Parts: sequence; C-alpha cells; structure tokens
Amino acid sequence: MALKWNEIESYAKDWVKEAGESIKASFQKKLTVQTKSNENDLVTNMDKETEQFFIGKIRNTFPEHRIMGEEEEHDQLTDLKGVIWIIDPIDGTMNFIHQQRNFAISIGIYENGIGKIGLIYDVVHDELYCGIKGRGAYVNETKLPKLNGVAVKKAIVGVNATWVTENDKIDPAILGRLVKDVRGTRSYGSAAIEMAYVATGRVDAYISLRLAPWDYAAGAIIVEELGGVITKLTGAPINLLEKSSILVAKPDLHKEIIDHYVTNFKEQTK
Amino acid sequence: MALKWNEIESYAKDWVKEAGESIKASFQKKLTVQTKSNENDLVTNMDKETEQFFIGKIRNTFPEHRIMGEEEEHDQLTDLKGVIWIIDPIDGTMNFIHQQRNFAISIGIYENGIGKIGLIYDVVHDELYCGIKGRGAYVNETKLPKLNGVAVKKAIVGVNATWVTENDKIDPAILGRLVKDVRGTRSYGSAAIEMAYVATGRVDAYISLRLAPWDYAAGAIIVEELGGVITKLTGAPINLLEKSSILVAKPDLHKEIIDHYVTNFKEQTK
Repeated sequence: MALKWNEIESYAKDWVKEAGESIKASFQKKLTVQTKSNENDLVTNMDKETEQFFIGKIRNTFPEHRIMGEEEEHDQLTDLKGVIWIIDPIDGTMNFIHQQRNFAISIGIYENGIGKIGLIYDVVHDELYCGIKGRGAYVNETKLPKLNGVAVKKAIVGVNATWVTENDKIDPAILGRLVKDVRGTRSYGSAAIEMAYVATGRVDAYISLRLAPWDYAAGAIIVEELGGVITKLTGAPINLLEKSSILVAKPDLHKEIIDHYVTNFKEQTK
Repeated sequence: MALKWNEIESYAKDWVKEAGESIKASFQKKLTVQTKSNENDLVTNMDKETEQFFIGKIRNTFPEHRIMGEEEEHDQLTDLKGVIWIIDPIDGTMNFIHQQRNFAISIGIYENGIGKIGLIYDVVHDELYCGIKGRGAYVNETKLPKLNGVAVKKAIVGVNATWVTENDKIDPAILGRLVKDVRGTRSYGSAAIEMAYVATGRVDAYISLRLAPWDYAAGAIIVEELGGVITKLTGAPINLLEKSSILVAKPDLHKEIIDHYVTNFKEQTK
C-alpha cells in the first residue's frame, strides 16, 4: 500500500501544534534543569516530555515507522531504510530556559534517506515552517518564495563567535576571512531557528561545526524546497547517520563560500 | 518650576507606541533603502520619518529640551546641560529591513547628564522596556527583578563574531579568551535589543566595540536601575558625547570580565 503522505503531514502538524501548546503552558511552571555530558548542553523536563509525547503518538499511529531523537536512546539506527522521524523536541534548549524564545520544535520525516516533510515550529511566534518534498515550503499558510542570490559582501551570515575563536573543530582563520567580508553576522543559538531564518531570507546563510541530524533534518528539507543548498562545510553531502559541520545557504552564496572561503577546511572524522 | 517627569514619561511612552504602530504598518509597504557612509549602515525612510516624528513632538511639547539623534544633524551637542532626548528611531536597521524583527526604538532622556527615563520598544513583540531613575525598570506593566549574579563560565554573552576576528578596534585574542570560557555567545544585531535582553536575563552581558550614545542611552538607564553595570570595555565611565566600546553586564560578571579578561584592552582615541 502506498504511504499516505498527506495523512502523515496532517498528523505531524497537529502533534507539533499540540506540543507547542504544552511548551507555552510550561513557561508558567518552574522547570527542572539537568546538565548533560557537558555544561553547555542543558536538558529540561520539557525536552523529555515533548519527545515522549511524539514517540507515543508515532508508535501508536505509525508502528512501522522508526524514530531518531536527541534525548533518549531509541532504535540504534545504522541505516536509513523505511520511514524515519528525526526529532528535536526543543532545539535551542539554553534559549528555552533563559529567554523563552529563539527555540523551536524540529521534525524531519525521511523515506529511505529522502526528505519528505520538514517541520520547524517557532512556538513563541506561532510560526510553523513546513517543507514538503516537491511542493515547496510554507510558513503557516503563506508560501515562501524561492531564495534569491546574494554575494558574500552583501550577506548576513549566522555564525557563532566560537568558530572564529580557538576551538577543536576548525582553524579560526578560515571563517575569520568570511566574517570580515560579509555585511554582518548573527547568532541565535538554535540551528532550527537559524535554518528557518535562511528559508525566509532573514539571514542568507548559516554555518555550524557541530550539528547532529536532529538539528538540521527538518531545515534541510525546507531550505532545499526553496532552492537553498545544504552540505557539510567541505561541500560534501550531509549524512543523517553522523554529526558534522553544516553550511546552509542561498545557492550562489553557498558556492562562493565553498569555492573561496573554506577550501582549507578538512572535516574531522571520529 | 520643577520638571514634571511623570508628564515627560507619559508623553514619551505615548509617542513610542504611536511610532511603533507606524513602523508595523510600514511592513506592508515597500521600503526605500539608502546606504550611509559604508555598506553596513543602512538607512530607510522609516528611520527618517520616525526620527522626524519624535523631533516634531518634542519641539512642540518641550521646546526647551535638546535632542541628540542618529539620522540627522541637530543641536551639535558639546555638553549635557539641561534635558536631552537621545534617540535611535530604529536600532537594528539591517534587522528591520531583512527580518522585520530584532530591532527597537530607543529613547534615553537625561537631565544634566543623569539618566532619568530609558525606553526601549521591541515593536514586533510589543514589549516596552522602561527604566525610571530611582523607581526600577519594567517590561510593559511587569516590574523586572534585580539582576542576580553569574560567573563567566555559566554566562551567555552577546558578542559579535567581528570582535574576535581581525578588526580595527580590538585585538581578537582579548575577547577570544572570554568566548572560550563562557557557556555560550549570541548576536542579535541590535544594541538596544541586546541591552533589553541583559535587563531580562536573556543574556548575561553584552559587549560591543563601536557604539554611539543613541545605541545605549536608554539601555544604560534600564540596566542600571536593575543593578547592572555599564562602562566602556576598559571599565571607564561611559561618555554620552562620544562613540566608544561598551560592556554592560550583571555586576559580578562585569567585574570578572574587567578584572580577568580585558586588562590588555586600550580604547582608541580619535
């Protein structure tokens, strides 16, 4: 039987909206905060509850689907066969805790490694970004236009100061040249939000050296539907089974950055 | 006759709200964009119209008050005598153009160099941050709590990647050490928004190397009312008659940054 993708989309959107309501309601309550493996990686009970909510819904409704998520050990995926939901219940946990904004729910649904449905829900702004393979991308009911070109010197790029400071992922001089040449840089602390900003033209590119598949699985589908390009910072294709660097940008800007700025970058293999 | 500060506050808030409505309405219209002296400094007709709106209101209502603003030549101020309105009609013009968010109206009202009323209006979120000398600070009708302490290693700091990249204001190694030690960095592209974020604890500190008085005049009043500290990055007092670096932070964090991170920084004199 052919998969009913309209049905999957409809369920996914309903669940995302319902989870968003719970998250908004939690702002009134005191959050419990745990630290994960390092101090910079905070986990709240809302992360866990929201992921459990999605897992329960998916298992009940689509028992044959597989799940990849941030917060817990699920299926240990070593391949991308079948339908996989790649979930970050709260992307930008630190912002969620400190700001109650600049975070999002991110869900990418893939079939045999091909992105089918990407959802990024900016809960606080009630903006649901949705990309559907072959049908374009939307924010709420508004269809987003294709991304226009922009040159490096006129671009606003999402890149954190960490990546132009001594760090264990990249020589700071590599992106330092880019930071000097662009019109401006920003950093919002949520990959999902920054990819939604690429989709809407609020920034022209977004770069990170340390993302997991759940950080970018939804954004990749949305941005590609608009003609944007997402690769590793080397220009190599993304791989949903590993953590890596990411460069997501308008197409000509992507090419200019790859061709003229990051030629000396080598991805570390672990 | 004693100045009626309640009356000034009431007028200023009304005008800020009215200007905000015009700005929101402009999102529907096509903006005209000019570039100022360099490519990174965009001016729109809304900046100019909004500043003219404030100037007209102030001149009519308080003819003896003086005005310092970003967009036009006004009184060439060489002293801070009397009542001075320090205005940035749209702080974060690039965000205003590209994002329609992350910008603010900023108005600081000073008497003989002493901050009396600081207003930052985040138009899109309808959040009016208001600090009144001796009476605390508010966001809309909600009184903001005093700022608690935080250590560098747990701090989120607003600092643009530019300042840890080769630039003409500061040795990138100076703030590079700080970027490595903090929990995280952010950059929103609007000094007024970032100072409002310091006021609400959304970030713990904000650093810039190149601000004008209209960028921080309102934020200084708001943050100081909450126990926060604003100085130049050298630790020297701010001077409303010149452009300079700025460090605004929770009090103990401010001290830690000054004592342990920026000891080698010398402000350039022009």
